Amino acid sequence: MERHVDQELNELNKSILAIGASAEEAIFKSIEALKNRDKEAARKVIEDDAAIDALELDIDEKCIDLIARYQPMAKDLRFITTGMKINAELERIADIAVDIAQRTLELVDKPILKPLIDIPKLTKVAQDMVKTAIDAFIKGDIAMAKKVLLTDSEADELRNIIQRELIEDYMEKDGTTAPRAVQLLLIARFLERICDHATNIAEDVIYMVQAEVVRHHPEKLK
Amino acid sequence: MERHVDQELNELNKSILAIGASAEEAIFKSIEALKNRDKEAARKVIEDDAAIDALELDIDEKCIDLIARYQPMAKDLRFITTGMKINAELERIADIAVDIAQRTLELVDKPILKPLIDIPKLTKVAQDMVKTAIDAFIKGDIAMAKKVLLTDSEADELRNIIQRELIEDYMEKDGTTAPRAVQLLLIARFLERICDHATNIAEDVIYMVQAEVVRHHPEKLK
Repeated sequence: MERHVDQELNELNKSILAIGASAEEAIFKSIEALKNRDKEAARKVIEDDAAIDALELDIDEKCIDLIARYQPMAKDLRFITTGMKINAELERIADIAVDIAQRTLELVDKPILKPLIDIPKLTKVAQDMVKTAIDAFIKGDIAMAKKVLLTDSEADELRNIIQRELIEDYMEKDGTTAPRAVQLLLIARFLERICDHATNIAEDVIYMVQAEVVRHHPEKLK
Repeated sequence: MERHVDQELNELNKSILAIGASAEEAIFKSIEALKNRDKEAARKVIEDDAAIDALELDIDEKCIDLIARYQPMAKDLRFITTGMKINAELERIADIAVDIAQRTLELVDKPILKPLIDIPKLTKVAQDMVKTAIDAFIKGDIAMAKKVLLTDSEADELRNIIQRELIEDYMEKDGTTAPRAVQLLLIARFLERICDHATNIAEDVIYMVQAEVVRHHPEKLK
């Protein structure tokens, strides 16, 4: 028999998926704006962030409301509090898309510094990590969450490659490239921070699942 | 008559103050290590982060345990869930101190690029914002929280001054300064991210206090 709380937890799942989809879309659009040197698209990413902020508050409110009305124990309570944390991470990811859009607005009036190859690669890694981390939460799948943690070193490496190239092949050789190279370097770091948020989500999922496993042995949590 | 839950909420307050103090200390020590070009001190900041991570998990566990045992309503529940969020922000602040320490390790083997003036200034702003935001939470003081939000533009401005100087006066004029200038630029951005975390805490406090104010008018939260 399905409990009424299960329906509401299912709604929470859907809301997390929705804010996750919005955050992923914001990342995608911010990098498209950069690739296409499209100011209008960059401004749209910045504008659209208000809706994601509102979604975050709404989900947060629903979580508190769920706890207050159902007074859930153990597994459900942990699912809700983890949902609250993941909600906050996803909102921060959308904020980073805004940061990327702002750097893009700085860049598009200046001549192209270099073709973008590794930044789109890193974007792909970041998007996959976010998607997998959200899936891991919805399914309570610890193996998927661990996959996210393993991918993080790949993101770090790509970020380092981008940073090294911008410093050694551009800024050091020709200082006048610095204003543009710095913007690209920051965008690479923003993307890597998105990967860090995905890692945080994955860690929260692992913690949620493991705490559940040991819930019949509460002494392990002390 | 004091309720037993009040004692435990008071303990939660103390734990948040403790992790806040550890995070503030980590920021301070990371910038001291940079100023003194002290590798040993930078490594110590990195090592000490594990204890702050453990403290965060411990506080998180206590919060879930408090909710499960007392099934608190309205005001207390909101205080606890806000405490969980602030706990996460403070742990992230300590992570940024680790980032600063890592940049410091990159810098200290190279010649000094410039005397540090604005970075210590920005550090002071960041420390004050974190301290005030935690105080605002403990006291439930919305005016203090708003003060933090107002200070954030000061932090942005200092970060912009530092960034502009490093690009225009160093990297553009002499490209060979780029490897060092980029590290300092990243440190300035890390400090500004600490200010962003303080802003998040302040926003959480305002939301907590306001939700409490409107709790007798639940339609305002829909």
